[in-house]
Parts: sequence; C-alpha cells; structure tokens
Amino acid sequence: MAVPWLHEMSWPEVEAYLQEKDIVLLPVGSTEQHARHAPLGTDTFIAARLAEEAGQQADVVCAPPLHFGWSPHHMVLPGTISIEAPILQGLVFQIVKSLAHHGFRRFVLVNGHRIANLPWLQLAAEQAQRELGVRVVIFDPAFMQKEIVPALGFGKVGHAEEIETSQLMHLRPELVRIDLAVDSEPHPQALYEPDPNFAGDTLCYVPSTLAQMERVARTTGGSTGQPSKADAALGQRLHAHLVKRLGQVISQL
Amino acid sequence: MAVPWLHEMSWPEVEAYLQEKDIVLLPVGSTEQHARHAPLGTDTFIAARLAEEAGQQADVVCAPPLHFGWSPHHMVLPGTISIEAPILQGLVFQIVKSLAHHGFRRFVLVNGHRIANLPWLQLAAEQAQRELGVRVVIFDPAFMQKEIVPALGFGKVGHAEEIETSQLMHLRPELVRIDLAVDSEPHPQALYEPDPNFAGDTLCYVPSTLAQMERVARTTGGSTGQPSKADAALGQRLHAHLVKRLGQVISQL
Amino acid sequence: MAVPWLHEMSWPEVEAYLQEKDIVLLPVGSTEQHARHAPLGTDTFIAARLAEEAGQQADVVCAPPLHFGWSPHHMVLPGTISIEAPILQGLVFQIVKSLAHHGFRRFVLVNGHRIANLPWLQLAAEQAQRELGVRVVIFDPAFMQKEIVPALGFGKVGHAEEIETSQLMHLRPELVRIDLAVDSEPHPQALYEPDPNFAGDTLCYVPSTLAQMERVARTTGGSTGQPSKADAALGQRLHAHLVKRLGQVISQL
Amino acid sequence: MAVPWLHEMSWPEVEAYLQEKDIVLLPVGSTEQHARHAPLGTDTFIAARLAEEAGQQADVVCAPPLHFGWSPHHMVLPGTISIEAPILQGLVFQIVKSLAHHGFRRFVLVNGHRIANLPWLQLAAEQAQRELGVRVVIFDPAFMQKEIVPALGFGKVGHAEEIETSQLMHLRPELVRIDLAVDSEPHPQALYEPDPNFAGDTLCYVPSTLAQMERVARTTGGSTGQPSKADAALGQRLHAHLVKRLGQVISQL
Amino acid sequence: MAVPWLHEMSWPEVEAYLQEKDIVLLPVGSTEQHARHAPLGTDTFIAARLAEEAGQQADVVCAPPLHFGWSPHHMVLPGTISIEAPILQGLVFQIVKSLAHHGFRRFVLVNGHRIANLPWLQLAAEQAQRELGVRVVIFDPAFMQKEIVPALGFGKVGHAEEIETSQLMHLRPELVRIDLAVDSEPHPQALYEPDPNFAGDTLCYVPSTLAQMERVARTTGGSTGQPSKADAALGQRLHAHLVKRLGQVISQL
Amino acid sequence: MAVPWLHEMSWPEVEAYLQEKDIVLLPVGSTEQHARHAPLGTDTFIAARLAEEAGQQADVVCAPPLHFGWSPHHMVLPGTISIEAPILQGLVFQIVKSLAHHGFRRFVLVNGHRIANLPWLQLAAEQAQRELGVRVVIFDPAFMQKEIVPALGFGKVGHAEEIETSQLMHLRPELVRIDLAVDSEPHPQALYEPDPNFAGDTLCYVPSTLAQMERVARTTGGSTGQPSKADAALGQRLHAHLVKRLGQVISQL
Repeated sequence: MAVPWLHEMSWPEVEAYLQEKDIVLLPVGSTEQHARHAPLGTDTFIAARLAEEAGQQADVVCAPPLHFGWSPHHMVLPGTISIEAPILQGLVFQIVKSLAHHGFRRFVLVNGHRIANLPWLQLAAEQAQRELGVRVVIFDPAFMQKEIVPALGFGKVGHAEEIETSQLMHLRPELVRIDLAVDSEPHPQALYEPDPNFAGDTLCYVPSTLAQMERVARTTGGSTGQPSKADAALGQRLHAHLVKRLGQVISQL
Repeated sequence: MAVPWLHEMSWPEVEAYLQEKDIVLLPVGSTEQHARHAPLGTDTFIAARLAEEAGQQADVVCAPPLHFGWSPHHMVLPGTISIEAPILQGLVFQIVKSLAHHGFRRFVLVNGHRIANLPWLQLAAEQAQRELGVRVVIFDPAFMQKEIVPALGFGKVGHAEEIETSQLMHLRPELVRIDLAVDSEPHPQALYEPDPNFAGDTLCYVPSTLAQMERVARTTGGSTGQPSKADAALGQRLHAHLVKRLGQVISQL
Repeated sequence: MAVPWLHEMSWPEVEAYLQEKDIVLLPVGSTEQHARHAPLGTDTFIAARLAEEAGQQADVVCAPPLHFGWSPHHMVLPGTISIEAPILQGLVFQIVKSLAHHGFRRFVLVNGHRIANLPWLQLAAEQAQRELGVRVVIFDPAFMQKEIVPALGFGKVGHAEEIETSQLMHLRPELVRIDLAVDSEPHPQALYEPDPNFAGDTLCYVPSTLAQMERVARTTGGSTGQPSKADAALGQRLHAHLVKRLGQVISQL
Repeated sequence: MAVPWLHEMSWPEVEAYLQEKDIVLLPVGSTEQHARHAPLGTDTFIAARLAEEAGQQADVVCAPPLHFGWSPHHMVLPGTISIEAPILQGLVFQIVKSLAHHGFRRFVLVNGHRIANLPWLQLAAEQAQRELGVRVVIFDPAFMQKEIVPALGFGKVGHAEEIETSQLMHLRPELVRIDLAVDSEPHPQALYEPDPNFAGDTLCYVPSTLAQMERVARTTGGSTGQPSKADAALGQRLHAHLVKRLGQVISQL
Repeated sequence: MAVPWLHEMSWPEVEAYLQEKDIVLLPVGSTEQHARHAPLGTDTFIAARLAEEAGQQADVVCAPPLHFGWSPHHMVLPGTISIEAPILQGLVFQIVKSLAHHGFRRFVLVNGHRIANLPWLQLAAEQAQRELGVRVVIFDPAFMQKEIVPALGFGKVGHAEEIETSQLMHLRPELVRIDLAVDSEPHPQALYEPDPNFAGDTLCYVPSTLAQMERVARTTGGSTGQPSKADAALGQRLHAHLVKRLGQVISQL
Repeated sequence: MAVPWLHEMSWPEVEAYLQEKDIVLLPVGSTEQHARHAPLGTDTFIAARLAEEAGQQADVVCAPPLHFGWSPHHMVLPGTISIEAPILQGLVFQIVKSLAHHGFRRFVLVNGHRIANLPWLQLAAEQAQRELGVRVVIFDPAFMQKEIVPALGFGKVGHAEEIETSQLMHLRPELVRIDLAVDSEPHPQALYEPDPNFAGDTLCYVPSTLAQMERVARTTGGSTGQPSKADAALGQRLHAHLVKRLGQVISQL
C-alpha cells in the first residue's frame, strides 16, 4: 500500500479497501515534555511511524494520529498538554465507533505514550468490544521491546531515556539535541517499578505526584534514565524490532 | 520561526518563546468524505497549512493539529469519523487549559471544517474565556474568504466544491483526482443557506439529516457545488488571501 | 386556533391536533440584563409572542416558553440568569424527544436571544434530527429581520438597542422606560461583528469576556447601540415582518 | 410590590430590591396530562400563582416559572413532556447559582408537581446549600394542605383529583372541562401511599410503571381520585390557605 | 435458606434460585458519624441485618451491602464518607441492571440511612423501572416503624437517637458505648420535620447546612434526640417489627 | 488494633487515630462468577481479609469493603454484577476525598479483582493525588505473589484457578466446593497474557469479549487454570506472604 493513511484516501478508496479487509491501526501519542534534548511530540512521532511502516508492510490502513494523551504529571514543564482520561476514552471510542459503522471490525491501538495512556485505552477498548462487537487490541512498545532492550545494552524504561531517544534519533534526527541530554542515577524501588523487566509489581502504575516530578525537573530537566547513551543505529534496530512485532500482532488478530 | 509546530519543539524552546509571546494557533479539521475527488483529511490539511504559514510569518507557535471534528451528516459515506460535540468541546478546552497553565494567554482556533465545527468551538472558546481568563478567537475560512470568492469566479460555499478543492490542489495536488469530480445543479433555498454571501439566514445552520445526505451521496458522490471548476492557481490566490487574513487576526488580537 | 399554547390544552385536544398536524413551535428566551430601560425577560417576551401569533395564524401548537438561556457575559449586571450550554441542550433535546414520542415530527425552535443561544440550539437540533429522525429548524429574528432593519432606519444589531427595544415597546409598552435609555457610540470592528449585515465575519461569535462587558456596563448600563431611537410604531412593523417570516418558515417545512 | 416577577423588572430594579432583601421564590411546575378535564400546565399554573400572590403580599421577587418537570409515568398520554432528573437538577442549581452571584441568599422552590418533582429538587437544594452557602427550602402544596384537605371534604391526594381540579377552577376556570371528569374507585394499598395523610409509608414514592399508568389511562383517562367533586369555591379556600402557608414559610426563613 | 447472601453463593446456586424466584433484596447503608456512642456503620448494620433476616425467613436472596451513602451534612465529624447522589444512583442502577440481565425482576432496596438516601434511591428505582421493565420498591425503616415507635415509648426520629441506638444495641451490643450518649432538648419546628409522625411537612427534606450541623456537633457530639433512653430489649422488639414488615413487603410485591 | 474496621469505630475513635496516623486501607473486590466451585464474592473476601490482617498487624484502619467491580466479561454467568468504570472511579475518588477531608493523607487501595479493576483504580488514584494532594498506591495480589506462586507449584494466573481457590479454601473453606472444580488445558498465547510471570506483554490487558467468555463458560463453567490442584495449606502460605507484602507496602509509604 503506497499510502496507508486514511486521511489521505478518498472515500471510494476506503470502500475498496473494506471489500477486502477490516483492520485499521490507530496511532495514539502525547504532547509532553521529553527533557531538554527531545521534542514534545516524541510519543506521537514514534506511534505514527510504527503504524505507518507496519501498515505499509501489511497493506493495512492507519487512522490519523492523535497528538494528545494523559500527562498530568508532566505539567510541571512548559508545552505539555494533558487531557482528562474520560475525554480521551470518549474520543477513541467514537473514532472506533465511526469506523465500525463503515465496516471495520479489528482495531490495533498503537500507543507511543507507554503505561500512562494504558488505563484509558483499556477502558475504551473494552467499551468498544462490548458495545460494538468489534475486536480491539493495544500495542505498546514498552512491553513489546522487552526482549531486545537488554540485548541493545539499554537500561530500564524511564522517561526520555536512551530507549526512546535512540528511536527518535533514528526517526527524526533533526529534532534531537543529544548534547543537552542529562543522565540520572538509577535509584532502585523496592516493590514497584514501571519497567516491564522489573521483578516486582510493574502493573499498579499511578503517575508520579507533581511534587515528585518537580524534583525530577530540577535535577535532570525531565528525564529519568541515561539518555546520553542514545544512539541512532541502536534506535534503528529497536524500531525495526517493534515494526516486526506490530506486524505479528496484525497477522495474529 | 523555522519550526512553528509546538510538538517539534523541546520544552526549553517553549519556555524561551513564552518569555516574549503568549499567542498560539490551534488548527482543527475533520476526517470526513470529500466526494470522489478529494481526500478525507481535506479540512485538516487546509487548517494545518493556514496555521503553519501564518505562524511562520508571524513567529507564532502552532499546537498539533486535531484531525477529528463533528460530521454526523457525512457518516453516509465510508471513512468519515464523527465525534460528539461535548467530547470535542472538552478536548479543545483542555488543550487551551494546559497551555494557559504554562503562560499562553491568546488563542486562535483555526478551523478547516467551516460551519459544522463552529457551535462546539464557540462553546469551548467561551468556557476558556470565562473559566481561564484568556482570550480566544475563531478563524474560519468560509467567512474570511467572503470577499475574494466572487472575485475568483467561484460559486457559493457547498461541500467539496470548487473553493476548497482549488485550495487543496494548491496544497496537496497529489491527493486530488479532479477527473472524478461531479458537479451538482444549484437548487436555491428560500430562507436558509450556509453560504456566507447569502442574503437570508446564514447562521441558523443545522447539519443535514442523513436522509438528505443520502440523496447527495447518490447524486454526486458527496459534493455540493461545481468542483470540476477547481484550479490550483486560483487555489493559490485563495490560500494566500486567507494566510494574510489570519495574519491580520493575529496582529489585531 | 383560539389557544395555540400546549400547556393550556388537555391531552385529548393534543390528540385531536395530532390527527391532522405534526408541527410545534418552541419559544426559547433568556433572563438577562437589557440595560436600564428594558426588562430582563425581553428575549422571552419576543420569542413567545412571535410563536403565539404565528401559531395562531397557522393553526400550529406552541410548547411552553423556556425563560432561561446562555448569558455568561451578562452576569456583570444583577438579575441575569445564565445556564451552561450542555444543560440547555439536554433540556431542549428532551422536550423534543417527549413530543416526538407522542407523534410530533417537525419542530421550529423560535429563539429570542439571538446569536448567544445559537450554538447549543444547533447541537440540540442536530441531536434530535439524528437520534429521533425528526426535522428541526431554528428561527432567529436577528437574521430574519436582515432586510427590514435598514428600511426602518435602524442601526446595527447590538444589545438592548433600538431594534429589540422598539419591538418590546409594541408588545409590552408598560415594561419599557425609554427615558432611561443610553446610546453608545458605534466603534467599528475590523474583521468580526455579530451584526448579520456586516461585511466581515458574522459567524465566529464568542460571547464577550467579562472584562469587556464590565466596560459596557459602566458606560451605557448594558446596552450597545442607540436605544433612544426606539419607537413602538416601527416595532410593530418589525414584529409583523417577523411573524410573517415565521409563517413562511412553517409553511415551507 | 406591584410586579413580583423578576423577568418584568429591569436590572436597576433588581439592584434596588437587593439593597433591602435577599429572598426569591422559584415556581416549578410540569407539562403533563391532567386527565380529560384539566390542562397539561395545571401544575405550573398553580405553582406560578402561589408564588405570585405570596410574593405580592410579602414584597418578594419571583423568578420566571419553569414549565418542565419529571413525569416519566405520564408519557402514556399525549402532550406530556418529561425531562430527566439530572438535567432538571442542573437547571435549578444554576438558576440558584446565578441569583446567588448577584446577592440573593434565601430561596423557596415552590413546587406545583407534588411528590414527583421532589427527589431532584432535594438534590438541587442540597447542592446549592453546600456549594454556594445559601439557604434553600422547598414548598410543596401536597403537604402544606394536609390539614385543610379533610376540612374541605376532599378525599386523598391522587392525580387530577378534586383537590387540584378545584384549585385550578378557581385560578383558570376557562381551562377546566368539569363535564369530562371521570372518577375512580379508591383501591386501598396496604403499606405505601403517596397521600400525606396516609398512616403507612408516604415517603418511599417511586413513580408508577408505564404498565400501571396505561391501566389508569384506559380506565379514567388519567385521573386518580374523584375530580367530579371539584368546586371553584372550595378551590378558592384551598388556594388562600396555601398562599398563607407560603407566606409563613417566607417569614420564618 | 441457609445463606441468603448472593456473594456467598456460586453461580450454579444463583441459577437454581432463578428457576423458582426472581426477587432480590439490596441493603444500602452509610458510613457516617453516629455521635460518640455508636459506630459509623450503624445504618449499614441495620439495613444488612433486616435484609438478611427477612431474606432467610422468606427464602429470598440478598445482594452484597453497599456501605456508602449520601451524607454531606455529616462531614463535620471525622470518619464520615459522603458520595454524590449521581454516583450512588448510577451504582444502584447498574447493580439492578446486572441482576436484571440474569433474570431477577423484583427488587427491594432496603435503606438503613432513612430520608437522606431516599432522593437518589427514588431516581435509581424509577430509572430501573422505566429502562429495564422491572419492579423496584424501597423499604425504609423510618416509615415502617411509624406505628410501633410511640408504643415503645420512643420520641421522634432524629439522628443516633434512642430508636436506632436501641436497634443497634440488640444487633451489635459490643459496638455501642451507651455511657457516652448525650441527649438534646427537642426544639419543635413550625412547619417542617423529618419525623414521619409529624403533623406538618415531613417530605420536603433538605439535609441541614454545615453551619447547622456544626452547632449539633458542638452541643451533643452529633446526635439529635434522647439516645440515653436506648434499650436492647426495646431494640429487639423494634427490629422484629421491621423484619416482619419487610416480609410483608416481599410477599405483596 | 483490636478492630481495624472504620465502620466499627465511632467518630471520636477515628479522631484519636488521626492524632497519630494518616494511613487507611481500602479493600476493593467484585461480585462475579468464580466457576462452579467458588462463591461470587471471592475477590472481595480476599481483599477484605488481606486488609483486615495487615491492618491489625500494623495498627492501620480499613475503610468498609467495596463489593462491586468491573466485570463486563463475566456477565455470561448468573449472579455477576458489573459496574461501569467511570462510576467506580467516581465512587473510590469520593471515598478518598471524604477521608482526606478528615485528615487521612496516605491510601492503599487493596484490590482483590486483579487486573480487571486496575485501569479505573489507576485513574481514581491519579485524580486523588492531583486534586487532593494525597498519596495513593495500589496493592494487587497478582503481582505481589509473583515470586511465591512458582514456589508453591501453582501454574499461571487465570480465573478461579488453583491460586485464588487455595487462598479462599484457607479463608472461607465452607464456601468452596472443590469437588465441582473443572480444570482447563493451558493454551499458550503468542504475545499477550495477563499472567505477571509471562515473558511477553502482560500489561495491555483488555477484558475478553463475551463470545470468548461464552466458550470458557461452556467448557469449564467459568474457570481458567487448574483449580482441582487447590489446597488450603498452600493457600495459607500464599495468604501469609501477601499479608507480609502488604505490610511492607504500608511501612514504605
């Protein structure tokens, strides 16, 4: 498929697609601070490119990207836009509902904002499955990169750390100012950790309080992890791995 | 400004901008059928480019585009995504609220979807003015092109007609299949008309019923007007006029 | 029809009416400051009388008047009651839904509050058309009086200006204290104006900020325009024109 | 006070009133079937006249009447308009909030629709007391007429029975067709009864199911009680009693 | 029935029950201050035991108890939990909806929190009857004990008074510290009173303002009435009376 | 602490507690099918006992248990009660808000319903942290038992499998009919699995569709896993481990 983006198609092209397929990808990102070295749209750029490349390979349509996510804890740094979860849930549900009305039956929500977008995406996905009788899965890079992250020599999942910075250096090198990256010392938590490779509880995530985030902003300018280790070549391998995984999710749906 | 897009900036760049300015443009479009000859994202492409060019000229930042609008009447043709007005109102209000939190005070909502997005944009704008003490204006091409449209030889505002088709032929020529354009006979309405140059009521717009739209879909494939007259050069003049008008709105704010 | 008011009929009278007709008028007003010379209920009195007289002439039923509208900007002066738009939308939608349940199919929302009630009336009308399969139009005096206003020698549409003051002097002379009317100098706006005869944008109306309205309250006591020119005889001609136009809207429905 | 109606006053008159007083009455009715002999607006007419006369006697302002109430069970007969409780609660709360903004502090909700409007009026009243710090009481004829009803020889409270029919024959004799009144046999209920003089539970009222109401509609055309006994002179005594009681509530506030 | 509690049954046991019956009891309480001598859960303990015993006698299932109610006025004393009415209404409606989905058709809401829970329970009950076609009644001790209260020598219904204190001394003697009970002087109100035996208005209940409750908290520690007269033996008679009445309500449903 | 339950305390006891501590535990369960061998309240019994025992050991108060959760996928079997997520979120937020009003500052939401309650608990926890400035963590057995589950010889987390069945056999042996337990063959999933020890994605959980659950209901009567291996002694060890872990979470807060 030359152009996998729904908004670049005319309705007769969508009609023709629906004769043969009923899958659509929905990239969902955020507009939130990514430290001094990466742009606010990092999560959206990653989600959109994952969807675009996997869509192209699998001949599957992509809905227009959603640039807005749930980022209450990042409001401590300028430019961040945070939308309340019920509005995001309603928006994604109605996107799915509109497309289901035309005949789409299987949906992959491609999330670039990791664990912070998951709760409301899960509620939207369940609502769509129950009320519309469609099938919805969520594709989240943080989990789908579990195996390859240690292999690439990266540390644990934090924020604007070497993992997503590398991926963005591959995708949009002109938007990364790696010279401004600030590393933080890892301070291990006893029982909870949002890193999927952590041995304790990786699930019961609650976004940091503003007080906690203000400390992070003062110390590193918003990153958690070791972004100075970011590398475009490693980012390319990571990205290729994720595109492949997304392809698998599509083919198993 | 090299890059007027907020999501391509890092937070220190936003912080620097806010030292000097407090204006931001928010492009709002739709994903809806635009007949057989134009893509579903027509409204978003126009709003985003108007914001981008006027932002570049005036050194004013643009928030990421919103690809989704209120299009209940266009659900008769595939690919259209329609979101209920309270969700759209909530979303735009919270974008404004997030940005106001960081110090933005003046907002221009740049609408590419004409009269169909206006009611909820008006409610969001008023809510923001009242609750946040900011200033919000709406820029709508349909009205700001009032003077130049007759000068360019165009007919009245319809849907996917020669006006927006010309503008898109200038902006994204590869997405227009002008050979598929179907004209419709103008059938005059006695008292109501969404065309801003109409002598009767141009204000009390209620989207067409699905029954009315099914008739349009059968007859012309979704357009109202004379898209076959569309022309890229005229579109360029129209677009330049609107960018200039948006610049005026910005400078008068 | 002797009594066009639904609430003065018994249910068997409504049942008999529905054997022959399915149209109903819904007058919608506001309770908001109308300067020192006119009562808070001006908009409701006008909407109710337009509906009553047109209903009587056309043998069409009128639902009870709604005295409450969207007036956030007029809260600067005492007595104003402002209801949030989603509540008003819900209320009018459910009035229509109740009546549609009994067999009414065509509705005219007769608005006395001009552009400030339009956004939520548009949303309610669209919701009713889509969810209930009925037909809903909005009748707004501001637009339907476009032609006659210059003929009567009136200036542009403002607030509690000579246009609505004249109409009320005809309808409820005992409630107008024309000796207290204060005129304001017209200060032309470059691009936006809520007056329907304005050449620029008359559509992208956002209610004034409270700061702007406080200035108006201090200067003229709440009016914009030249109420001192109000005249009952001209008001009568205006009113007759609007009743006739409403009759046309009814007969074309 | 010549004119107790807020909507017939100008804002300077409201301002003058607030120099001396902070009480306001809010009449709340319904538009619902009242059998074959009485009009749909019966409840509103009674509430509005109680407020108007008590307001006039006590020099207290009355807000415009609300013609719409909660009447789900009466939807079996044409003309009935039923609004969902959260919308009614929101509407009355915002009326109180607007008036509290101007300086009103004590509110009497004058209910003409008896027990069916009470749950949502109670929620609105509590919300106003808690969030706005004002004082709100509800005046309900059904309870305030407890003592006089047996004295007048009336039976128990039903619907469109001799009690409210008599009151309306006094207030709006031209709207009552007493020749069409149909009586029903009283069928005693063991434990529950909405009549305030009942010895069992008079409180845990839940509106009848539609199935129950369809039976009533078939049998008596919508009334429960003995409307044929209605009498304008008795209605006058009842009405005078209630106006006096409302005056007491005002003076004790 | 050995175990009337739904949550102690497995689904095959529920399935077997539904072969024969379609009634279920829903106990609803509160967590709110009950003066110095009684626990916060008093209302829930009473509702749950009434349901459990009546359920056992009549072989009728009980849903799990709801420990949370509407107690805005009791927030002046620590430990009180107050939930807003729309959430409580939604919760109980969805409990009924879930059970109706499985085949339950008749519901008794057993309220331990007297008049303060009634408005939202009435709205939930009506919504369930209308939308789900089921039958819902409310059982409230305050009214169902009307006859026996004077016989037991108790005074009027207040808060944490001798009536509910006696009942709790019978049910959970270890949780009552009767030595800490503080009596209050009865101060008669002219027209309104929540006591069901009162001759005036017992219906138009609006929870006390926080200012009023702070006075009560300071004077008696939260009780209104004469708790020092509480007695376990009288409580047992009261409780037995209410269980019998609930049994009657079940058998008449 | 003899009695850790808030609803068994009087308000002066809560006041005394708040002089020294500001922590409270909130047990949250569900009422949902747990196969043929376990009761509907399994999740609530586990959450309540974990809270009660850890509270007793650490002298920390427990709020009353919430018996209702989000179980849309289990509605295929009778007795299941499923509440929509926004209502549950609102309820838990308001419980936290009420308690924060009295001085509680640190909250542990003790979840017995595993991953299905997590999305809305996360949203409620974040809302409370942001709007109320308190600290909220979630304790979920599924993750906190990660290490011990393999040591006890249990398989992966499913539904009503040997893990929770064992725990309930220890806590409420009289409610388990282990003779009715039906095992299912493990069928491995390629990329997603709700079991926390799974190597793929354990996070992007969306409840099964009703179609998927109907298959489970038909095959095993609602369980997934090998409940026949359940054992009370192992359940005791598991339970002790979790009580200890909850103690650690409390002491690290």
